[in-house]
Amino acid sequence: MLEKIDLNKKLSKKEYEIAMDELAPKLALLQRECKAAEIPIMVLFEGWGASGKGTLINKLIAPLDPRGFKVFTIQKVSEEEAMRPFLWRFWTKLPAKGRIHIFDRSWYRSVVANSIDTSGKENEKARWLSEINQFEQELVEDGMIIIKFFLHISQKVQKSRFKGLEKTKKTSWRVTSQDWKQNESYDKYRNLFDEMIAKTDTEYAPWTIIEATDKEFATSKIIATMVEKLQDAKKKKEEALYQKEISKQDDQVESNEKKQNNEKEVPIIRTESKAYLEIEKALKLDVLSGVDLSLTLGKENYKKRVIELQEKLAILHYEMYRNRIPVVLAFEGWDAGGKGGAIKRLTENIDPRGYEVVPVSAPNDIERAHHYLWRFWNAIPKAGHLTIFDRTWYGRVMVERIEGFCSEKEWQRAYNEINHMEEHLTNFGCIVIKFWLHIDKEEQARRFKERQETPEKQWKITEEDWRNREQWEQYEEAVNEMIIRTSTTNAPWIIVEANDKYFARIKVLETVVNALEERMGKKAK
Amino acid sequence: MLEKIDLNKKLSKKEYEIAMDELAPKLALLQRECKAAEIPIMVLFEGWGASGKGTLINKLIAPLDPRGFKVFTIQKVSEEEAMRPFLWRFWTKLPAKGRIHIFDRSWYRSVVANSIDTSGKENEKARWLSEINQFEQELVEDGMIIIKFFLHISQKVQKSRFKGLEKTKKTSWRVTSQDWKQNESYDKYRNLFDEMIAKTDTEYAPWTIIEATDKEFATSKIIATMVEKLQDAKKKKEEALYQKEISKQDDQVESNEKKQNNEKEVPIIRTESKAYLEIEKALKLDVLSGVDLSLTLGKENYKKRVIELQEKLAILHYEMYRNRIPVVLAFEGWDAGGKGGAIKRLTENIDPRGYEVVPVSAPNDIERAHHYLWRFWNAIPKAGHLTIFDRTWYGRVMVERIEGFCSEKEWQRAYNEINHMEEHLTNFGCIVIKFWLHIDKEEQARRFKERQETPEKQWKITEEDWRNREQWEQYEEAVNEMIIRTSTTNAPWIIVEANDKYFARIKVLETVVNALEERMGKKAK
Repeated sequence: MLEKIDLNKKLSKKEYEIAMDELAPKLALLQRECKAAEIPIMVLFEGWGASGKGTLINKLIAPLDPRGFKVFTIQKVSEEEAMRPFLWRFWTKLPAKGRIHIFDRSWYRSVVANSIDTSGKENEKARWLSEINQFEQELVEDGMIIIKFFLHISQKVQKSRFKGLEKTKKTSWRVTSQDWKQNESYDKYRNLFDEMIAKTDTEYAPWTIIEATDKEFATSKIIATMVEKLQDAKKKKEEALYQKEISKQDDQVESNEKKQNNEKEVPIIRTESKAYLEIEKALKLDVLSGVDLSLTLGKENYKKRVIELQEKLAILHYEMYRNRIPVVLAFEGWDAGGKGGAIKRLTENIDPRGYEVVPVSAPNDIERAHHYLWRFWNAIPKAGHLTIFDRTWYGRVMVERIEGFCSEKEWQRAYNEINHMEEHLTNFGCIVIKFWLHIDKEEQARRFKERQETPEKQWKITEEDWRNREQWEQYEEAVNEMIIRTSTTNAPWIIVEANDKYFARIKVLETVVNALEERMGKKAK
Repeated sequence: MLEKIDLNKKLSKKEYEIAMDELAPKLALLQRECKAAEIPIMVLFEGWGASGKGTLINKLIAPLDPRGFKVFTIQKVSEEEAMRPFLWRFWTKLPAKGRIHIFDRSWYRSVVANSIDTSGKENEKARWLSEINQFEQELVEDGMIIIKFFLHISQKVQKSRFKGLEKTKKTSWRVTSQDWKQNESYDKYRNLFDEMIAKTDTEYAPWTIIEATDKEFATSKIIATMVEKLQDAKKKKEEALYQKEISKQDDQVESNEKKQNNEKEVPIIRTESKAYLEIEKALKLDVLSGVDLSLTLGKENYKKRVIELQEKLAILHYEMYRNRIPVVLAFEGWDAGGKGGAIKRLTENIDPRGYEVVPVSAPNDIERAHHYLWRFWNAIPKAGHLTIFDRTWYGRVMVERIEGFCSEKEWQRAYNEINHMEEHLTNFGCIVIKFWLHIDKEEQARRFKERQETPEKQWKITEEDWRNREQWEQYEEAVNEMIIRTSTTNAPWIIVEANDKYFARIKVLETVVNALEERMGKKAK
């Protein structure tokens, strides 16, 4: 998942100033408000060596009242600490209500260290991760806010930072052999971080990935995230107190009066300048902003490749059947992104007895009377079969989120529910691949117009498509979050650059062929 | 934990009639109301062979409208089912909103079968249990009610039932060699059931143990449990709808009016006859009712044993220190149950540098500003040390529950939180033993009186003790639930029959000595 993050993001000096003018006073105010509301807060910084944890913590605390926070630097386990259970040193460092504790490294330090140092400790790692999730969940249920930052940089940037540090005596001691080992085995570490993040990215304590190449960008994103989380926390606490009030309140008292009182207590501050709103948008998009939509494939090339790949796929489809491997391919993408065309190229040459395409639209009455995943569980392939979903369970975190068909709590919960469903499938041996067919807004306009003007394509374009197009930016945010939260090693998202339909179709075919070959052992990983 | 259940409980014909007259019409009404409220319900029956699943399901459905429920008998996995993930066959059997699905065996069938049939599949079992917990949690969060019954009988009763069935041709086919194997390895199976229950006894889908020796008792408890759970579900659903109404409601409308409307919708039915209330109490106590308080130990015997055990303990205490084993002893019990005396006998002969007694009373201001477990984490022993808690974290589910110092949601959640804390300790290698010093109400009265009349003991008795005594029955229910929900293999509850203080002290000393010897490898298990 870290691989998908766009690490080229930066802010100009001017943009940084606009952002900080907006955010710093807000954060300062929220700190005071959260103190008054007695909300305890923990902020964790994890990430690559030389990703700038120290610097960024300094930037974060600059606007804060120093009487309200404390910074902990988590070193290797001390002798005293080693004599107690793993989480003891963090249980004893919990902030009291109304205080902020900031951790430079945290309980995740041991997980990573443990993963690297020794093999054969898989059981212990699993246990620690489970203890961590229980720990975080129980604190959050008790009212704690846990904000987890992972600072992400590329192998190249890390290397040049290490070299920079080594240049002068003043800083060269900071680069250890351990650090260089991390840089050399960058991919191995990235997989470990990916796994750690995936297993502890929960609705109660989600991770925020910080693109830390550019210090100004990273600082702004950290402070913007803090502002958002503290605002949410304050709002929720006030709502909870209000609910408590209601249930306590004497029946004789006019309820109306209470309500008015309460409204006074929850002022909604929206003072953002227009210039800042643009920057805020950039801070939010980690994935889609980095997709290169200029990629193309010539028609001749396409024709040749499509035949080769379809022939391979036909054979692999039989082998998959004989080996009893179930396969789920999930297609999502922008309207007119080319799902239909890609699915057609996948299926046109394989045995129709061994696959099924399941088109997914709004749920019917019976489906609505069940859990939203029920209809998808009913449609999953049996061993040896292939099921292609044209739109999927991800509707929960896209259309249902945006149209308000489910509550915020429900779609927030859905990321984990979906990860669990896919994990249950892959635990069973199922191959699960998810495609996001990505085009830009201009290309969509071109395709919509073409559809309207071509009689045999007019059925493909409806009023709803135009309505959805108006919500492009909301979808962009939702898709971005969806890909971040549900990209797992066992069921990856493949973002398909689909402005060029030839390129897109071949990428889909290739991905499926490669995944099947890999499982069938034809190809070393 | 199953070992602690009092399996001698029964109802007379008369009591059974009173109970059913009360419960059956209630259940019928609740079924209609839950249908109207669109609540989906799953009821699971698991338990020993010949524990009466079929018969009891028949009794349960007798009062129900047959158009509203369906019974599923879960057999071995079929060929079609084996071609899909483990939980597929249950996902596809989910009840629609407003319907009841009853399962004769369930997703737990595979867990048990898998535990018995093969060794070395520990990983798979852990995965299944985790998939089950995710499955149940996600359904419950979506509004499903999951009621899980475990039908419990003794080895002796099972044996005589098998023999009874084998007597006639009509029923002899029902007893298989597998059944006899279960009876012969009763203890092994009980441990497996214990583990399965402990790992899946969650606040969202808790188990209810049914003492199934007496059919009338079992039927009444099952139906009483159903009534309680459906009443809760209905109430929660109505509250949720009401909250939704409030937030939707136009500000102009008088809130008062809404509230009155709502009150009409939530009638509270309390029509229980006095005779039934007595029976209901009996249905609720699974553990304490079976404690034999007549156990005694003569003074001479006591004197001899106490010296022997204290000498052993002193040596074991050093060994424990040398082997770096941390030990936690947790003492709870009725007021005047003899905690102080028992603790004194434990400590009077061991090295004071290696132990600490932590008296626990109401939390102070700083403690109240933290998570309720924080102060206990601060006090846990380091490796090689012994910490004795005189009252403990279990205050959360006793005094805090009964006095309303925390919300119902909070103390319900606490069982799991406490199990997790103790598991984190034992994962680290800590020995954790919990003692409940049990006396009856008459013995307490005698001791209170003695304290009041003996000048040097007067400090031990306060107004609060008398107040607590008035809530004896509420405490009884809370303690019973506490022991059931937090008896784990790694951190067991020891119920100490403490009407005779000599017996109690020796049992405590013996338990600690045995646990230490076992860990030190002096004694085969």
